Amino acid sequence: MVVERVGVSFEPELLEKFDSLILHKGYASRSEALRDLVRKALIEQKAQMPKGAVIGTITIIYDHDVGSVTDQLLHLQHHHHSEIRSTTHIHLDEHNCLEVLVVKGQAGSIRELADRVTAIKGVKHGELVLTRADL
Amino acid sequence: MVVERVGVSFEPELLEKFDSLILHKGYASRSEALRDLVRKALIEQKAQMPKGAVIGTITIIYDHDVGSVTDQLLHLQHHHHSEIRSTTHIHLDEHNCLEVLVVKGQAGSIRELADRVTAIKGVKHGELVLTRADL
Amino acid sequence: MVVERVGVSFEPELLEKFDSLILHKGYASRSEALRDLVRKALIEQKAQMPKGAVIGTITIIYDHDVGSVTDQLLHLQHHHHSEIRSTTHIHLDEHNCLEVLVVKGQAGSIRELADRVTAIKGVKHGELVLTRADL
Amino acid sequence: MVVERVGVSFEPELLEKFDSLILHKGYASRSEALRDLVRKALIEQKAQMPKGAVIGTITIIYDHDVGSVTDQLLHLQHHHHSEIRSTTHIHLDEHNCLEVLVVKGQAGSIRELADRVTAIKGVKHGELVLTRADL
Repeated sequence: MVVERVGVSFEPELLEKFDSLILHKGYASRSEALRDLVRKALIEQKAQMPKGAVIGTITIIYDHDVGSVTDQLLHLQHHHHSEIRSTTHIHLDEHNCLEVLVVKGQAGSIRELADRVTAIKGVKHGELVLTRADL
Repeated sequence: MVVERVGVSFEPELLEKFDSLILHKGYASRSEALRDLVRKALIEQKAQMPKGAVIGTITIIYDHDVGSVTDQLLHLQHHHHSEIRSTTHIHLDEHNCLEVLVVKGQAGSIRELADRVTAIKGVKHGELVLTRADL
Repeated sequence: MVVERVGVSFEPELLEKFDSLILHKGYASRSEALRDLVRKALIEQKAQMPKGAVIGTITIIYDHDVGSVTDQLLHLQHHHHSEIRSTTHIHLDEHNCLEVLVVKGQAGSIRELADRVTAIKGVKHGELVLTRADL
Repeated sequence: MVVERVGVSFEPELLEKFDSLILHKGYASRSEALRDLVRKALIEQKAQMPKGAVIGTITIIYDHDVGSVTDQLLHLQHHHHSEIRSTTHIHLDEHNCLEVLVVKGQAGSIRELADRVTAIKGVKHGELVLTRADL
């Protein structure tokens, strides 16, 4: 892999605090930690643009005994099959399920899908994570 | 299911704006939307407590060609096997993978696991979602 | 003030957890706490729309001894005088200042202003809060 | 100011995307933008520790005609006078006020103050920003 070397100046106290933070988090090098911060900033920017191409996950918790939640989830997910790459289901207890949908598409459209899934009666909580694979 | 009925007072203009928001998001009723807001507030509170019991997902993007990333991920995940309920892997392109770990444990310990996974060289981005199944 | 009374159904366990949360936060009534959650959701929606009319604050920390930071801040703020309602300055120590700008305008334009202020050399950190007065 | 020079390696494509982001945000140099990312990460870490010393702002919107909101705000703020460095008040319209409290103390205690202020009847929305002056 070709890499470009960039010189960055830091106040010694700031560098010391950063070294302590990344040691705590488990990073092997400053470069790796700084690149992760840069990628995070780029992802946040892209996620704010409705037309930005993103990939992500929708995590939901639902009670499969409530009304027709299973049918509605199935129906909605099939309707969005082109944006859903996979679904993982975990049986948490007698009633509750966790489902993770891996999703890919435009940020605005993915947000809308996350809203709709979360709004279904029986779905107790939904959270969307957006990321990018092109960094 | 036993339910308790609670009377909530709203200024008419606020209620109108809320109705428009939940219609846009796809909710069938105000009760459902309000319960979701309540659960979200409870999840945020629990997630801030290091000892709070949570369930969640860690979403990572990594390049499987970088160094020993695959080995390190495998090793770290096995070390935390009691906190990882499942792992889903998606082949995004020639180089990039998305992996979702469904995790369960104490909020502080789950945060630490998310930090360690993200810090591995080759892992480009990691995001943690915390939720609860007891609501 | 005219109010509308809305009936909301809750599972008893959820209501109990919510009561404990709002007691902890210091709310006098469920209605007040629920209205706050509703307004928060409406603010988040508006803040995501670039053209949404918002009001907010930009909090910055800067070292007034670094280069021409004071001049640049003054110049930039005057250029945006129509969006800045007031500026409060706190002398934190020999070198550091905290400044809070109360800002009003379109969400997209306010975000851009927050970016520019934060990007000035000498400004160490900047955070934007968006809210609404029409709720 | 003494500075330490650190060499950071980037993939050329990542560097190009970062350059485009920081140009857009108005940064004069990569070093400045990277230092801001580092400080942001350090602030987030400190804010999560209940005993971490932080400085910040609490932004609230309230309707001064609702009940005894003005009295309650005054009373609560005086009770926390040792943590509140200053308060700025903006008259938004006939009814609504924006107030910004500059606060300093332990993260846990500041969060609690923000909760209590927001919970007062008449206060429609409150947001807390935490930062640090020692970076």
